[in-house]
Amino acid sequence: MQEVKETAEIKAFVEAEVRRQIGEARKEIDRAIAEVRERTVDDRATIVVFSGDLDKAIAAMVIATGAAAAGLQTSLFFTFWGLSLLKKKGAARPKHGIKEKMFALMTPSSSESLGVSQMNYFGMGSKMLRSMMKDKDIASLEELIDMARDLDVKMLACTMSMDAMGIEQEELVSGLEYGGVAAYMADAASSRVTLFI
Amino acid sequence: MQEVKETAEIKAFVEAEVRRQIGEARKEIDRAIAEVRERTVDDRATIVVFSGDLDKAIAAMVIATGAAAAGLQTSLFFTFWGLSLLKKKGAARPKHGIKEKMFALMTPSSSESLGVSQMNYFGMGSKMLRSMMKDKDIASLEELIDMARDLDVKMLACTMSMDAMGIEQEELVSGLEYGGVAAYMADAASSRVTLFI
Amino acid sequence: MQEVKETAEIKAFVEAEVRRQIGEARKEIDRAIAEVRERTVDDRATIVVFSGDLDKAIAAMVIATGAAAAGLQTSLFFTFWGLSLLKKKGAARPKHGIKEKMFALMTPSSSESLGVSQMNYFGMGSKMLRSMMKDKDIASLEELIDMARDLDVKMLACTMSMDAMGIEQEELVSGLEYGGVAAYMADAASSRVTLFI
Repeated sequence: MQEVKETAEIKAFVEAEVRRQIGEARKEIDRAIAEVRERTVDDRATIVVFSGDLDKAIAAMVIATGAAAAGLQTSLFFTFWGLSLLKKKGAARPKHGIKEKMFALMTPSSSESLGVSQMNYFGMGSKMLRSMMKDKDIASLEELIDMARDLDVKMLACTMSMDAMGIEQEELVSGLEYGGVAAYMADAASSRVTLFI
Repeated sequence: MQEVKETAEIKAFVEAEVRRQIGEARKEIDRAIAEVRERTVDDRATIVVFSGDLDKAIAAMVIATGAAAAGLQTSLFFTFWGLSLLKKKGAARPKHGIKEKMFALMTPSSSESLGVSQMNYFGMGSKMLRSMMKDKDIASLEELIDMARDLDVKMLACTMSMDAMGIEQEELVSGLEYGGVAAYMADAASSRVTLFI
Repeated sequence: MQEVKETAEIKAFVEAEVRRQIGEARKEIDRAIAEVRERTVDDRATIVVFSGDLDKAIAAMVIATGAAAAGLQTSLFFTFWGLSLLKKKGAARPKHGIKEKMFALMTPSSSESLGVSQMNYFGMGSKMLRSMMKDKDIASLEELIDMARDLDVKMLACTMSMDAMGIEQEELVSGLEYGGVAAYMADAASSRVTLFI
């Protein structure tokens, strides 16, 4: 009886001692793993869409849908000329200031009137690019934007740019989020892929 | 004898108990480390070469060779106008459609006829840039492309762009890989550096 | 007494055995954690400022200050036309070669004479953009550069570009670091956000 009691006591001691030492080691290990985890990224891609050129807009949307299809949570931050991609057709609001009027005149009124970054001979380049892509059964910019929505790509419109360029929410398509560079950076800082287009 | 046996038994028990508890802890720890590892990146850089401008092409190749020299596995994804960098001199195939003919006329026929993104006064900008770089013993675009090859930089030609622009494999230099946005994204998603140029 | 001594010995053995086995496991675990840590990133953002366009320069500085405000160590690598942002007003040195003279004539003399990437109708675009941003109380490019400095954003001027374009250190503002693509890559390779603007 004495021996059995002793063995039970020893076992209890051993189990407790192992648990204690492992517990201490675990605290250090878990802290080390947590520190390393802080230095990692999410399965996320973030693209700044700055350009209002048709060819760059298509590239941005092809990459965005490709990223989403590859399983990355994808965010697009539309800023400056990139906001043209989001304009509702025929929804331009009357502009009040003379500068805003001129600015609106000189920027595309919707995704359908974007030019091409190179060889934009009076809009011929963009007509040709659209036509050649159609001939080859490649998705149009508008189809790509719809695909991106279906793949839950987040579309963030830059409020600072909207303010600077005199663009109001009613002029843009629905389903957008609105924010500034801080909102963009919150996504970008944990992204695997970050691009400026 | 009894005591010795007891001690041996105790030692065996202790060793086994420690191994058991550590084994359990290890399973959890290894799982935690594997989860964190999933959130990390490879020593890799991935650049989308979208532009067909000489200055941007030089920047892309300087960064690519710099990344490779720094020990990063470097991939270039040549898309849209960026495909011009890969065109073999004098290898343009006769184009069939009128659109493809015009498109070919309006895009550079090889890396040696690229313009500059700014101040491209009838090609003077690119001649001057090339000449100034030569005066300063800075590598030319063609030398940079050769250096990139020597450093095992992967060159991926975008098949969707080739299709849209009517460019065939025989028109491009040898040693390329061919693929779409999915192939690009497979490299980009684990890259330390991702750029769109 | 005998029993007590035995128990003390057992305890000592247990403690030592646990320490030994945990020690061995720790070596493996620490190695695994260190390997994973090698695959992580710093809280860092790195932007190549290639463009000399006012709108892109503003975008670069807004993103840089946003990144710094979000707690990321931010580096800007000014290369090619991007060096125009760093030119001291009226500090252009007399150029010796005819090519360097022409190049200097054709590039902006300071951040105040940058054009806009789109709709740069003889400088009207950039005047209008500056004026609209002022109306809306949005920081000017020069204010953004000052903000970036206050936020300890590192400004690295590309020595290869300076060499190629014939720009000397005395022509640039103070407080810059000087380096090539290797210096850029050292920061970029551990960055959460890498952009080419």
